[in-house]
Amino acid sequence: MRSRTVYRTFQTERRREFVRITDDVQQAVRDAGISEGMVLVSAMHITAGVWVNDDEPGIQADALEWLDKLAPPSWREPDGDVARALLPDGGDYRHHRGGEDNGDAHLKNLLVHHQVIVPVTDGLLDLGPWQQVFYCEFDGGRSKRLVIKVLGE
Amino acid sequence: MRSRTVYRTFQTERRREFVRITDDVQQAVRDAGISEGMVLVSAMHITAGVWVNDDEPGIQADALEWLDKLAPPSWREPDGDVARALLPDGGDYRHHRGGEDNGDAHLKNLLVHHQVIVPVTDGLLDLGPWQQVFYCEFDGGRSKRLVIKVLGE
Amino acid sequence: MRSRTVYRTFQTERRREFVRITDDVQQAVRDAGISEGMVLVSAMHITAGVWVNDDEPGIQADALEWLDKLAPPSWREPDGDVARALLPDGGDYRHHRGGEDNGDAHLKNLLVHHQVIVPVTDGLLDLGPWQQVFYCEFDGGRSKRLVIKVLGE
Repeated sequence: MRSRTVYRTFQTERRREFVRITDDVQQAVRDAGISEGMVLVSAMHITAGVWVNDDEPGIQADALEWLDKLAPPSWREPDGDVARALLPDGGDYRHHRGGEDNGDAHLKNLLVHHQVIVPVTDGLLDLGPWQQVFYCEFDGGRSKRLVIKVLGE
Repeated sequence: MRSRTVYRTFQTERRREFVRITDDVQQAVRDAGISEGMVLVSAMHITAGVWVNDDEPGIQADALEWLDKLAPPSWREPDGDVARALLPDGGDYRHHRGGEDNGDAHLKNLLVHHQVIVPVTDGLLDLGPWQQVFYCEFDGGRSKRLVIKVLGE
Repeated sequence: MRSRTVYRTFQTERRREFVRITDDVQQAVRDAGISEGMVLVSAMHITAGVWVNDDEPGIQADALEWLDKLAPPSWREPDGDVARALLPDGGDYRHHRGGEDNGDAHLKNLLVHHQVIVPVTDGLLDLGPWQQVFYCEFDGGRSKRLVIKVLGE
């Protein structure tokens, strides 16, 4: 069994950002020298997600608007009455008592999940034609890490 | 370490459908000849999900109604005011500018996730008494693939 | 390749409860005697979740309030009009026809997911500074199992 561990650090300029990392994941697999196995891609923070989806700007804008309605930020006006109702009943997240303002990012992380596993076949990521791996930053502007763990033979 | 890769293709008649695939996953494990390991079950499309849940028609109908409220289709009337509010503010998904009408299926995929990992113990899927593996089609009527990847010894 | 399988049984006093299990997962890795690999932590029931998040009571209370709005219980009054609208149109879950009252817990399980994979590096769980593994009970007071599966070398 071979393994390889690669860390990537992100410091996005914008608070929320989608960063395509498919090539980083493929490179880690190449460097591990495996032909069959799996690779885990996992955010090391709880205010970011990792997903596999289409690299289509419309989908990303749709998804962010949707996530802001379902898990509304309290650092700006909620986007309509449904978003307002989905904020905590007191109007702000309990998590913010400690001085944070990223309660919504924690909920977005739970909703989209913080990790994916990509199968490796013949040395390549075994993805469908439109599947790309993305790091989804929901609370950027600070240094955040992600781990890529390859296992196989 | 042994590995085995199996692809399954679905072409569901209905636009949305739940297909139980536990036996396909168990068969792949049997054919891999492993007794200890893991098996990844992962949709290769971004408008379908894979989940582990009860094979109970009531749960599936509940879940689909719920997903249609939280991630509403725009190819039919939204199911009430909350669903309408959760559509994009312009009334339709940006993703549809390219001619697609499956924006809701992308969001459902993010919400329920596109993959599960099942542990393998003594050659069997190590599932709880009510756990069944399902392929969840949210945009059917076209050919879609899924990968089953077994790793173990 | 080495593997180890550990089961944990929970019988929470309260209907909903968050139980930190990071130490159990680390202990299983130690007992497996691996330095490189992955560990799968997976609920064996479909009314519970497993997540990686901060061990901060505010986040847990925020998350539970939010989940009760998005996937509302029918065994108590819904928390506002949005929660009421997200119940099934008939007012109660179809799943309850069989005598159950945990339809909301099935939906919460789909939303937060029932499993995580933790990478293992140098014999330790390779988690970020605030990442803790939690078993999230959404329908407690009965005996529920979880499987921890370690694979590596």
